[in-house]
Amino acid sequence: MLYRAEITVGLKKGMLDPEGTTIRRALGHIGYKTESLRTAKQFLIELDAGSEEAARSELDEMCRRLLANPVIHTYTIKLEEA
Amino acid sequence: MLYRAEITVGLKKGMLDPEGTTIRRALGHIGYKTESLRTAKQFLIELDAGSEEAARSELDEMCRRLLANPVIHTYTIKLEEA
Repeated sequence: MLYRAEITVGLKKGMLDPEGTTIRRALGHIGYKTESLRTAKQFLIELDAGSEEAARSELDEMCRRLLANPVIHTYTIKLEEA
Repeated sequence: MLYRAEITVGLKKGMLDPEGTTIRRALGHIGYKTESLRTAKQFLIELDAGSEEAARSELDEMCRRLLANPVIHTYTIKLEEA
Protein backbone atom coordinates (compact mmCIF):
# COMPACT_ATOMS: atom_id res chain seq x y z
CA MET A 1 0.00 0.00 0.00
CA LEU A 2 1.25 3.49 -0.85
CA TYR A 3 1.27 6.02 1.98
CA ARG A 4 1.78 9.74 1.92
CA ALA A 5 3.46 11.34 4.92
CA GLU A 6 3.97 14.91 5.98
CA ILE A 7 6.82 15.16 8.47
CA THR A 8 7.42 18.48 10.18
CA VAL A 9 10.70 19.00 11.99
CA GLY A 10 10.93 22.05 14.22
CA LEU A 11 13.14 23.32 16.99
CA LYS A 12 12.29 22.36 20.56
CA LYS A 13 10.71 25.03 22.77
CA GLY A 14 13.41 27.23 24.22
CA MET A 15 15.87 26.58 21.37
CA LEU A 16 16.91 29.80 19.68
CA ASP A 17 15.72 30.15 16.08
CA PRO A 18 18.10 32.69 14.51
CA GLU A 19 16.62 32.16 11.04
CA GLY A 20 13.15 32.97 12.35
CA THR A 21 14.45 36.01 14.23
CA THR A 22 16.14 37.33 11.09
CA ILE A 23 13.04 36.82 8.94
CA ARG A 24 10.86 38.48 11.58
CA ARG A 25 13.20 41.49 11.59
CA ALA A 26 13.21 41.64 7.79
CA LEU A 27 9.39 41.58 7.76
CA GLY A 28 9.44 44.42 10.30
CA HIS A 29 11.72 46.46 8.04
CA ILE A 30 9.16 46.34 5.23
CA GLY A 31 6.26 47.20 7.53
CA TYR A 32 4.87 43.86 8.74
CA LYS A 33 4.62 43.60 12.50
CA THR A 34 4.47 40.07 13.95
CA GLU A 35 4.38 38.89 17.56
CA SER A 36 6.58 35.85 16.89
CA LEU A 37 7.98 33.83 14.02
CA ARG A 38 9.45 30.34 14.15
CA THR A 39 10.69 28.25 11.25
CA ALA A 40 10.36 24.52 10.60
CA LYS A 41 11.22 22.07 7.86
CA GLN A 42 8.75 19.82 6.11
CA PHE A 43 9.35 16.55 4.29
CA LEU A 44 6.62 15.17 2.03
CA ILE A 45 7.33 11.49 1.61
CA GLU A 46 5.60 8.74 -0.36
CA LEU A 47 6.45 5.22 0.70
CA ASP A 48 5.24 1.66 0.27
CA ALA A 49 4.46 -0.26 3.45
CA GLY A 50 2.42 -3.26 4.51
CA SER A 51 0.27 -1.33 6.96
CA GLU A 52 -0.19 2.12 8.43
CA GLU A 53 1.60 0.99 11.60
CA ALA A 54 4.58 -0.28 9.57
CA ALA A 55 4.73 2.99 7.63
CA ARG A 56 4.57 5.08 10.80
CA SER A 57 7.24 3.03 12.52
CA GLU A 58 9.58 3.32 9.52
CA LEU A 59 9.01 7.08 9.26
CA ASP A 60 9.67 7.45 12.96
CA GLU A 61 13.00 5.65 12.51
CA MET A 62 13.88 7.91 9.56
CA CYS A 63 13.24 10.94 11.76
CA ARG A 64 15.35 9.67 14.62
CA ARG A 65 18.21 8.50 12.41
CA LEU A 66 18.41 11.19 9.73
CA LEU A 67 15.68 13.79 9.35
CA ALA A 68 15.75 15.28 12.85
CA ASN A 69 18.32 15.80 15.55
CA PRO A 70 16.63 14.55 18.74
CA VAL A 71 18.78 16.85 20.86
CA ILE A 72 17.32 20.02 19.38
CA HIS A 73 14.29 19.04 17.27
CA THR A 74 10.78 17.82 17.74
CA TYR A 75 8.89 16.24 14.87
CA THR A 76 5.36 15.30 13.93
CA ILE A 77 4.29 12.70 11.38
CA LYS A 78 0.96 13.01 9.53
CA LEU A 79 0.15 9.91 7.53
CA GLU A 80 -2.55 8.98 5.01
CA GLU A 81 -3.14 6.36 2.34
CA ALA A 82 -2.25 7.70 -1.09
CA MET B 1 -7.09 39.81 18.09
CA LEU B 2 -4.11 37.47 18.10
CA TYR B 3 -3.90 35.02 15.21
CA ARG B 4 -1.65 32.03 14.73
CA ALA B 5 -0.64 31.17 11.16
CA GLU B 6 1.12 28.22 9.64
CA ILE B 7 2.60 29.15 6.28
CA THR B 8 4.07 26.38 4.14
CA VAL B 9 6.28 27.35 1.22
CA GLY B 10 7.12 24.59 -1.24
CA LEU B 11 8.49 24.28 -4.73
CA LYS B 12 6.05 24.37 -7.65
CA LYS B 13 5.30 21.07 -9.38
CA GLY B 14 7.98 20.32 -11.91
CA MET B 15 10.65 22.35 -10.10
CA LEU B 16 13.66 20.22 -9.23
CA ASP B 17 14.19 19.69 -5.49
CA PRO B 18 17.89 18.79 -5.15
CA GLU B 19 17.71 18.88 -1.35
CA GLY B 20 14.86 16.37 -1.38
CA THR B 21 16.70 14.16 -3.88
CA THR B 22 19.83 14.14 -1.72
CA ILE B 23 17.90 13.30 1.46
CA ARG B 24 16.00 10.54 -0.35
CA ARG B 25 19.32 9.06 -1.53
CA ALA B 26 20.80 9.30 1.97
CA LEU B 27 17.73 7.51 3.40
CA GLY B 28 18.24 4.81 0.75
CA HIS B 29 21.86 4.38 1.81
CA ILE B 30 20.80 3.52 5.35
CA GLY B 31 18.07 1.14 4.21
CA TYR B 32 14.89 3.24 3.92
CA LYS B 33 13.19 2.99 0.53
CA THR B 34 10.85 5.82 -0.39
CA GLU B 35 8.88 6.47 -3.58
CA SER B 36 9.40 10.21 -3.46
CA LEU B 37 10.57 12.93 -1.11
CA ARG B 38 10.00 16.68 -1.43
CA THR B 39 11.01 19.38 1.01
CA ALA B 40 9.17 22.51 2.09
CA LYS B 41 9.66 25.32 4.55
CA GLN B 42 7.25 26.27 7.30
CA PHE B 43 6.80 29.57 9.09
CA LEU B 44 4.79 29.67 12.32
CA ILE B 45 3.70 33.24 12.80
CA GLU B 46 1.72 34.99 15.53
CA LEU B 47 0.29 38.34 14.61
CA ASP B 48 -2.24 40.89 15.79
CA ALA B 49 -4.95 41.86 13.31
CA GLY B 50 -8.42 43.39 13.37
CA SER B 51 -10.07 40.41 11.69
CA GLU B 52 -9.30 37.06 10.14
CA GLU B 53 -9.58 38.61 6.67
CA ALA B 54 -7.08 41.34 7.60
CA ALA B 55 -4.67 38.77 9.02
CA ARG B 56 -4.93 36.57 5.93
CA SER B 57 -4.43 39.48 3.57
CA GLU B 58 -1.35 40.67 5.47
CA LEU B 59 0.13 37.14 5.55
CA ASP B 60 -0.51 36.77 1.84
CA GLU B 61 1.40 40.00 1.21
CA MET B 62 4.29 38.77 3.41
CA CYS B 63 4.46 35.61 1.31
CA ARG B 64 4.46 37.46 -1.98
CA ARG B 65 6.99 40.07 -0.85
CA LEU B 66 9.43 38.11 1.28
CA LEU B 67 8.66 34.54 2.38
CA ALA B 68 8.16 32.96 -1.04
CA ASN B 69 9.48 33.48 -4.54
CA PRO B 70 6.37 33.45 -6.75
CA VAL B 71 8.44 32.29 -9.72
CA ILE B 72 9.35 28.95 -8.13
CA HIS B 73 7.24 28.55 -4.97
CA THR B 74 3.67 27.84 -4.02
CA TYR B 75 2.44 28.60 -0.51
CA THR B 76 -0.48 27.78 1.74
CA ILE B 77 -1.69 29.76 4.75
CA LYS B 78 -3.49 28.06 7.64
CA LEU B 79 -4.92 30.54 10.10
CA GLU B 80 -6.60 30.29 13.50
CA GLU B 81 -7.38 32.53 16.45
CA ALA B 82 -4.75 32.15 19.15
